[in-house]
Amino acid sequence: MLRVPFDEMKGLFRRILVSRGLEEGEAETLACIVATNSLEGVYSHGTNRFPRLVHDIECGTVDKDAKVEKVIQAGSMECWNGHFGIGPLNAWKAMERATELAHEHGMGLVALGWNNHWLRGSTYGRLAAERGCIGICWSNTKPNMPVWGGTVPKIGNNPLIISVPKADGAHFVFDSAMSQYSYGKLEEYRLKGEMLPFAGGFDDEGRLTSDPAVIEHNGRMLPIGLWKGSGLSIALDLIATVLSGGASVTQIGQMGNERGLTQIMIAIEADRLGGGKDVDRIVSTILGDLKSGEAVRYPGERLERTRKENLEAGIPVDERIWAQIEELGAGC
Amino acid sequence: MLRVPFDEMKGLFRRILVSRGLEEGEAETLACIVATNSLEGVYSHGTNRFPRLVHDIECGTVDKDAKVEKVIQAGSMECWNGHFGIGPLNAWKAMERATELAHEHGMGLVALGWNNHWLRGSTYGRLAAERGCIGICWSNTKPNMPVWGGTVPKIGNNPLIISVPKADGAHFVFDSAMSQYSYGKLEEYRLKGEMLPFAGGFDDEGRLTSDPAVIEHNGRMLPIGLWKGSGLSIALDLIATVLSGGASVTQIGQMGNERGLTQIMIAIEADRLGGGKDVDRIVSTILGDLKSGEAVRYPGERLERTRKENLEAGIPVDERIWAQIEELGAGC
Repeated sequence: MLRVPFDEMKGLFRRILVSRGLEEGEAETLACIVATNSLEGVYSHGTNRFPRLVHDIECGTVDKDAKVEKVIQAGSMECWNGHFGIGPLNAWKAMERATELAHEHGMGLVALGWNNHWLRGSTYGRLAAERGCIGICWSNTKPNMPVWGGTVPKIGNNPLIISVPKADGAHFVFDSAMSQYSYGKLEEYRLKGEMLPFAGGFDDEGRLTSDPAVIEHNGRMLPIGLWKGSGLSIALDLIATVLSGGASVTQIGQMGNERGLTQIMIAIEADRLGGGKDVDRIVSTILGDLKSGEAVRYPGERLERTRKENLEAGIPVDERIWAQIEELGAGC
Repeated sequence: MLRVPFDEMKGLFRRILVSRGLEEGEAETLACIVATNSLEGVYSHGTNRFPRLVHDIECGTVDKDAKVEKVIQAGSMECWNGHFGIGPLNAWKAMERATELAHEHGMGLVALGWNNHWLRGSTYGRLAAERGCIGICWSNTKPNMPVWGGTVPKIGNNPLIISVPKADGAHFVFDSAMSQYSYGKLEEYRLKGEMLPFAGGFDDEGRLTSDPAVIEHNGRMLPIGLWKGSGLSIALDLIATVLSGGASVTQIGQMGNERGLTQIMIAIEADRLGGGKDVDRIVSTILGDLKSGEAVRYPGERLERTRKENLEAGIPVDERIWAQIEELGAGC
C-alpha cells in the first residue's frame, strides 16, 4: 500500500489550492486541515474528499473569494456570516475566535451561518482543546433521516463534537453524528456484501434492519438511541438556526447541493473554575478508572495512536485517488 | 382514579416541608418543583418521589440546612458548592443565576458540585426557556451502565436537557438520559410481564436483549446509540467534574446513596444573535415543517397537553401513595 509522508501530502494540497486561487495562508491552513484528517485515520474526510473539495471550489459551489463576516457582537457571543465560503476555513476561524472569547469571558460562542461543509467536526474540537478549552460544536446538514415515527428524511444527522483537553495532547474528542451509521458506512458494508453489526435503519415495513442496501434505498436511517437521537438532532438544528439566523436543515434541503450549513462553536476555559490547576489530573483519573480492568477505549484514544503511526510510516492512501490528486497538481 | 388539584398538592407539599424545617420560601419553591413534575405527567419524579425526598431530608442524606455557596466567579461563569443540600433547590438557583449571567454576557454557566439529585432535568430547561434563554444542562449520576465494550457499570446515564423557548409557552424541551431505558422503565415492563419494545441492554452472553429482568439483574444497560451514547456520557461527566471540581461518576459510586452529584447549567439568550426578533417564527417554522404531513411530535409537545389536562381535571395520583403523603402531612 502506498504511504505518503504528512508534509508531502500537505505541500501538494497547498500548491493545488494556491493554483486554484486561494491565498497562501488560507491554502496552508486548509491543506493542513485536510491532511490531518487523513493523518488521524479519517480518510473519508481527508485524501478521499480532497478532489471533491477542489471541484467544489472550481465550479463555485464553494466561493473561494467570499470573506467570512462578523454580523453581531453580544458580550461573549458573536454571529458570523460565512457567505458560502470555504467551510473548513470559516469553521476554523470561528472556533479560534470562540477560544479567544473564552480567554476573555470564561466562555465564548460563535454562531456561523451560511457556511459550507466543515468536513470533520473533530478538527474544531481538537483546536479548542489545543487552546486549553473544552470545545462543544456542531453543524447541521441537509435532511438525511426521518423524524422518529416518520418515514421521510426531514432531520439532519447533525454531528456533535465535545472535546476536553489533556496535557499530553491525547485530548478526549467525542465526535458523533445523530444517525447510528453514515451513508458512507452503509456503502462500505454493502460493497463488502455484509450486514451492519447492529440495526441501522428501518425497512419498508417499518421493522428495524441491518441490511445496508435497504436503508440506502429508502433513506430510513436510524437515529442514535431511537427517539432520543431524533430529539437531539432537532435540538441542535433549532439552536444553530436561532443563534445564527442561518439556514435550518429544511432550508438546506431546499437549496440543494448541501450548501449554506450552520455551525455553532462553543469554547469554555477548562481551568478557570473548580478544577483549576487539577484539570489534567481529574481527566486522567476519570479516563483511567474507566479503563481499569476492562479493554475499553475512550473517544479520541485510538485516533492518537493512528496519528503517531501515520506520522512515522506515512499516511496510507488509495493509489487511484492519489494519482487523481497528483494529476490535479500537475504543473503546480 | 383519584385526581388532586395542583394548588392543593403544592400546598400539602409545602406544609410538610415547612414542618420538616425548611424556610417558607424554599418550601414553596421545592413544593412547586415536585408538584409541577406530576402536573406535567412525570409522576415518577413528582408525587411518587415525594415521600423519599421527605425521608432523605429527615435522615440527613439531604442536608436541609446547607446553604449553596458561590466558590469562584470567572467572567460569565461561576462555580458553586451545593454542600449536599436540597438538590432541586440548588439546581433551580443555579439555572436562575445562569440566566442572569446570560442577560449580562449573552451566555452564562454555573457549575454546581457536591449537590444532590435534581429530580427531573426538564425543570431547569423549562426555567431557562421561561426566561427567554436556550438552556443546556446535565447532571452526572452514580455508575449505572457499562462503558461500551465493558461489562461492569462504570458510567452514569447522565441526563442531558436542551430547551428552546417558544412565545406560547409550549417550549421545546429535550430531556434524555444516556441509557436507552431507565431502571424505572425496566421495572414497569417486568411487572407487566412484557418485553421492552426495543433492545435495552445485553444478556450475560453479551447479546442484545429486550428482557427487562435480565438487564435489571446484570446491570448491562444499553447506552443510546451504542458506543456513541457511551462516549457522550463520558464527555458530560468530564466537563461536569472539570468545571465544578466536584464528584465524578466514579466518586459518586464510592460515596454510596447517590449523593454529591454534579450539575452544569448553561443559559444562552435566544434573541441576542442572528435570529433576533424572529426567534419565535424560526422555531415555529422548523417544528411545523417536521410535523407537516406526518404524525410526529417534538420533545415537550405532549407534556404541554398533559399539563393543560391535569390543570383542568386535577393531577392523577396513586391512591396508596397519596394516603402516605397525607399521613406525612397529618397535623401540618
